[in-house]
Amino acid sequence: MGVITLTTDLGHRDFYQAALKGSIISQLPDVRLVDITHEIPSFDIQRAAVVLRNAFRYFPKGTVHLIGIDTVFQEDSNYAMMKFDDHFFVGADNGIFSIILGESDPQELYEIDIMQDLRYLHFPLADILSKAACHIAKGEPLSEIGQPIDKPLKKVLVQPLVGSNTIKGHVSYIDAFGNVISNISKELFNEVQKGRSFKLHFKRNETINKLSWHYNEVPEGEKLCLFGISNFLEIAINKGHASRLLGLQQDEVVMVEFLDS
Amino acid sequence: MGVITLTTDLGHRDFYQAALKGSIISQLPDVRLVDITHEIPSFDIQRAAVVLRNAFRYFPKGTVHLIGIDTVFQEDSNYAMMKFDDHFFVGADNGIFSIILGESDPQELYEIDIMQDLRYLHFPLADILSKAACHIAKGEPLSEIGQPIDKPLKKVLVQPLVGSNTIKGHVSYIDAFGNVISNISKELFNEVQKGRSFKLHFKRNETINKLSWHYNEVPEGEKLCLFGISNFLEIAINKGHASRLLGLQQDEVVMVEFLDS
Amino acid sequence: MGVITLTTDLGHRDFYQAALKGSIISQLPDVRLVDITHEIPSFDIQRAAVVLRNAFRYFPKGTVHLIGIDTVFQEDSNYAMMKFDDHFFVGADNGIFSIILGESDPQELYEIDIMQDLRYLHFPLADILSKAACHIAKGEPLSEIGQPIDKPLKKVLVQPLVGSNTIKGHVSYIDAFGNVISNISKELFNEVQKGRSFKLHFKRNETINKLSWHYNEVPEGEKLCLFGISNFLEIAINKGHASRLLGLQQDEVVMVEFLDS
Repeated sequence: MGVITLTTDLGHRDFYQAALKGSIISQLPDVRLVDITHEIPSFDIQRAAVVLRNAFRYFPKGTVHLIGIDTVFQEDSNYAMMKFDDHFFVGADNGIFSIILGESDPQELYEIDIMQDLRYLHFPLADILSKAACHIAKGEPLSEIGQPIDKPLKKVLVQPLVGSNTIKGHVSYIDAFGNVISNISKELFNEVQKGRSFKLHFKRNETINKLSWHYNEVPEGEKLCLFGISNFLEIAINKGHASRLLGLQQDEVVMVEFLDS
Repeated sequence: MGVITLTTDLGHRDFYQAALKGSIISQLPDVRLVDITHEIPSFDIQRAAVVLRNAFRYFPKGTVHLIGIDTVFQEDSNYAMMKFDDHFFVGADNGIFSIILGESDPQELYEIDIMQDLRYLHFPLADILSKAACHIAKGEPLSEIGQPIDKPLKKVLVQPLVGSNTIKGHVSYIDAFGNVISNISKELFNEVQKGRSFKLHFKRNETINKLSWHYNEVPEGEKLCLFGISNFLEIAINKGHASRLLGLQQDEVVMVEFLDS
Repeated sequence: MGVITLTTDLGHRDFYQAALKGSIISQLPDVRLVDITHEIPSFDIQRAAVVLRNAFRYFPKGTVHLIGIDTVFQEDSNYAMMKFDDHFFVGADNGIFSIILGESDPQELYEIDIMQDLRYLHFPLADILSKAACHIAKGEPLSEIGQPIDKPLKKVLVQPLVGSNTIKGHVSYIDAFGNVISNISKELFNEVQKGRSFKLHFKRNETINKLSWHYNEVPEGEKLCLFGISNFLEIAINKGHASRLLGLQQDEVVMVEFLDS
């Protein structure tokens, strides 16, 4: 039984995500469908990429991840399929593939080529992308329904600025608990830290100078920082909503200063 | 494996939709359950009908669509099962069947007759309707658990007013993207248009005089109209929230004027 | 095919619940996953317990109910598995087991003992609890992955105060329809009532003196009380949002007075 996951901005109030599921089940009656989320803000490719990048490795190898963000047809639209880390990704080639890849290269990359008069397509997600996803979930080769391409459309996330004693990053994601996740990865942090102690600066005067392993290591209501589930430096409050309580917003600057002893 | 879809106003916060699913799985361990939506506003039969009418044909023939809107028992309650377009519908006979049918006739229509002391029924959706849905999903005949009836309870949606040069409709649905969907179908539009050019009027002074095929045919932030996924005339803004930006609300009048050349 | 249900505060916007599902499917490709809800307010053990206690019996015997509330590791954390009423429950031993049990005793109760360096665990729900749930869903004995314990951590819900002519309870749950559910069970009510008539008092001067069987027994917009799906005394308004319209909030006092004839 193949697995297809869905990451879209379609929400749950309308009939669109149900129509998508119906079209998949009609093609592949035994498939397992799993919602990653349908609550990506409209057209927010970056957030979709961050969510999917964090979730996909929890699924079995061979899973097909169908991405329904910004898939509306336009003159220069391309729809793509990618094999990466033994998972498959299907969506509009609007930059999301390059964010998922980061610095890595895909194992396979194809433009989807299913002959249709695109002029009459109102719902490419159900009309084209779900067909490609089902084709792959059946174990059929990508090459049968596409042309190989070299690179996906490039969309670059703003990366942290690295000095010898500092990493200047920003808030890239705030989760539903209010945890504030930066774009500073554990790998980068370790690489620059070289065993030194540090001070994490944010807002005007806030600092944290210790890495926690768990939210519960500080008393309830106190702030902490840690590398959590996402593997990126995260500012949190034990049992509290850090974003609201600390006033930290999406895209705000956070800076790590490393201290020579 | 049968497929049962769920369209309810039960939401996701309480235990009701889970209880419904549990009761179905207990009866039919291999069934595939698909949520159409649980976010219909409480008791909004019309919205449920519009959502389901747009979604159901994407599912395989033979799918059972269980409708959990306004199913609470009352003295004159009837619960019904309908076969229409080779799909099955199960719900309270509260008008929703007639809206789904529109001008069409059902292939089969039954009042559900499962003997129970209705007085003790607090949850007819799980106690009666889920049993009927499972019965049908097993491939058993409707006649075994019901009495044929002639017509469902009639509930009429307000239809557009048609003149020789005009169609006067209204906003019947606003989706989560803010797209404004009218009650003017493509068929009606074509029938009255007879190849003429047109002007779509709404609000005090707004007009659109060209049908688009895709949201992306106009520059970002500009308004357009099209027959989209729903097959009804829709007013949208490319990458924008048309309802908010144009101030268009549910039930507001929109009018198409056809121009003799 | 085993069934695992999920009750968490993870929401649908982030990748956490998807990661949890992916980790379960990777271990047990044929399992059926059912969301009870992911919309428990953060850390609200009591609400999770009430939701799950009301939902679980609708599922088949043998179902595994995975509880993802307040599962973050701390020094004195215990993770537990319980067999109760031929259902299985897996979660952090934070009081939720004792609320689900009420006055009853579990059939089996174990502390989960899966060797891991807990210091490195950021996501115990996926790293420990999902493993235990899959183990049980495969039909393996609890004793293989845990040590028997005597009692779960005790967390007591405030119980109604009972006099010879009164029951003084409070609002324990408000559902998405605005129905106001108290902590006064049908059993307790019947036990104290002894066939007498009654007056339900709430707010300053509101009273109801008749039990309804269905919401629809009073005219639309009028208040009523009943023992509904949850089996607890509930104040509702036919087709209305009782909590908003009557100003009844979580934890507010409601009192039943029994009248000697």
